[in-house]
Amino acid sequence: MIETPYLLFLGDAADQLAAKVAQGIKDWRPEYAVGQFRMEGCNADMGLPDMTIAEAKAKGVKTLVIGVANRGGVISQAWKRVLLDALEEGLDLASGLHNLLRDEADLAAVAKTMGRSLHDVRVPSVAYPIANGKKRTGKRMLAVGTDCSVGKMYTALCVEKEMRARGLKATFRATGQTGILITGDGVPLDAVIADFMAGSIEYLTPPNDADHWDLIEGQGSLYHVSYSGVTLALVHGGQPDALVVCHEPSRPHMRGLPDYKLPTLQQVRDTALTLARVANPACVVAGYSINTQHLPEAEAKAYLADVEARLGLPATDPFRFGAGKLVDALAAI
Amino acid sequence: MIETPYLLFLGDAADQLAAKVAQGIKDWRPEYAVGQFRMEGCNADMGLPDMTIAEAKAKGVKTLVIGVANRGGVISQAWKRVLLDALEEGLDLASGLHNLLRDEADLAAVAKTMGRSLHDVRVPSVAYPIANGKKRTGKRMLAVGTDCSVGKMYTALCVEKEMRARGLKATFRATGQTGILITGDGVPLDAVIADFMAGSIEYLTPPNDADHWDLIEGQGSLYHVSYSGVTLALVHGGQPDALVVCHEPSRPHMRGLPDYKLPTLQQVRDTALTLARVANPACVVAGYSINTQHLPEAEAKAYLADVEARLGLPATDPFRFGAGKLVDALAAI
Repeated sequence: MIETPYLLFLGDAADQLAAKVAQGIKDWRPEYAVGQFRMEGCNADMGLPDMTIAEAKAKGVKTLVIGVANRGGVISQAWKRVLLDALEEGLDLASGLHNLLRDEADLAAVAKTMGRSLHDVRVPSVAYPIANGKKRTGKRMLAVGTDCSVGKMYTALCVEKEMRARGLKATFRATGQTGILITGDGVPLDAVIADFMAGSIEYLTPPNDADHWDLIEGQGSLYHVSYSGVTLALVHGGQPDALVVCHEPSRPHMRGLPDYKLPTLQQVRDTALTLARVANPACVVAGYSINTQHLPEAEAKAYLADVEARLGLPATDPFRFGAGKLVDALAAI
Repeated sequence: MIETPYLLFLGDAADQLAAKVAQGIKDWRPEYAVGQFRMEGCNADMGLPDMTIAEAKAKGVKTLVIGVANRGGVISQAWKRVLLDALEEGLDLASGLHNLLRDEADLAAVAKTMGRSLHDVRVPSVAYPIANGKKRTGKRMLAVGTDCSVGKMYTALCVEKEMRARGLKATFRATGQTGILITGDGVPLDAVIADFMAGSIEYLTPPNDADHWDLIEGQGSLYHVSYSGVTLALVHGGQPDALVVCHEPSRPHMRGLPDYKLPTLQQVRDTALTLARVANPACVVAGYSINTQHLPEAEAKAYLADVEARLGLPATDPFRFGAGKLVDALAAI
């Protein structure tokens, strides 16, 4: 569990896109985002107050979060100076980078001396159990996709936001690095040992109030041959009451697999539902979440109307047009 | 890769069942099983010549394989003396125990001094790639099950034996500890990191001669909520041309999951085939492998006849009645 609030480290981000972790935190947990730290040459801006480490500390910041991808896969000396400064001022560090903070001898030494934590969210920090499949109280929604990176995290976050706006009990459950940094907690599922994948998701989504919804971030796709096993562990460990099928209509082929066409929404619906009902016979598909960012508004609306007409369930782009339809459907379960 | 041939260490096995790894090697790779080493109080016997370490070395043995489960989860001092002796005589050690050989300081030190290898087959020794899904040459069969521990390893080994007896090119591909110790190579899939599961199976079953069959040991079940993700990684990473559906008819519920009933053969057939065809649209189900060990012979035969009549494909207990029917079906693909 990462302590909040955060100072968002944007470093020397080449552009706004390079700082998408910081953007996610700013968009979804603005109450955690007290300020930003930009180095010379930084081309990203979250519109937050620029702060020194000391100013952030004075404002109550607990953790400096690396909100930017590093160039060339190494933590540069210029970054190092800021990170060491943060540790010495008494902040923890959190990172989703491939090269781990803990593997940097100077950071590890100063963190130890100062009694600070280095959170490398790519690496599991818990010894997860093997899944036991026991029925848990509370309700769970899982976002499943036709492909990787079609908007499953944003779908779950949008549904959480809309449910909370309606006064419903709802918790986004992160299963990837960005989601963990946004919310401060979660399971880095792609780094979990095979035997414990489903158990890690049971651990992430424990028994809860009968009217509480866990909104589980999906990973991969049952139709993506590189990662499908990770997806099925979510379907069975998550024990969902409802699935939302996510899709991005402009993909020419499965991400990273030029020889593989995307499945249809119907295929994903049928396969995911068959498998989900092994763990929860009452599971239903609540609706469709379409990532329409590459379509003009009129085309996007026509696409959604067509999905609703063909498949008989609500379809929306929850980031663009709101998650109301999905929450209506979930609240009726 | 573990060097052969082996001396099978039976230790102080409580009974024959405790030495099932040794039994598997003796049954399936008799050419590797030069002798056995039994300590005082050993109640298992493979019917092999009892040998001292020195005698085994003189007979050309390269590796002492721990063919028995240890009591209480610790490597006892009595075992230690034999294992140290083996290292000092110049043998490697191989083990599928939970407590690793490498974690025993004295074994690690002597192995280093002597230049010997400690093979802990529960731990991956390769940095597997992420699966790329590219079509590979050669043919592959995957054993899939209604549940865990229904006979998937034995099915693949029986098919290998029958194919080789007919002069066909065939290789059993181990995906679990016992299979790896039997054949000296394989992937300990349940210990692989989630992102690399399917890639490890691509690595295990590389391109091959067009008329060569890889016979892939299955793991778990698509219907076993604790391990289904591991199974799906096999279905997609293995890219099978043929599935053999394995079943054990006497199970009251899924192994370790009292609230879960077993799926029907039809359910496993349909779900596995739908998913397998994502990676290989030509995949078919070749037949059914029924573990009839708890049925008298007449009942076993009636059960198999019923499966064939209902499902229209060959059904056999390959360990009891031979794998001929399955190999006939595979050879016709």
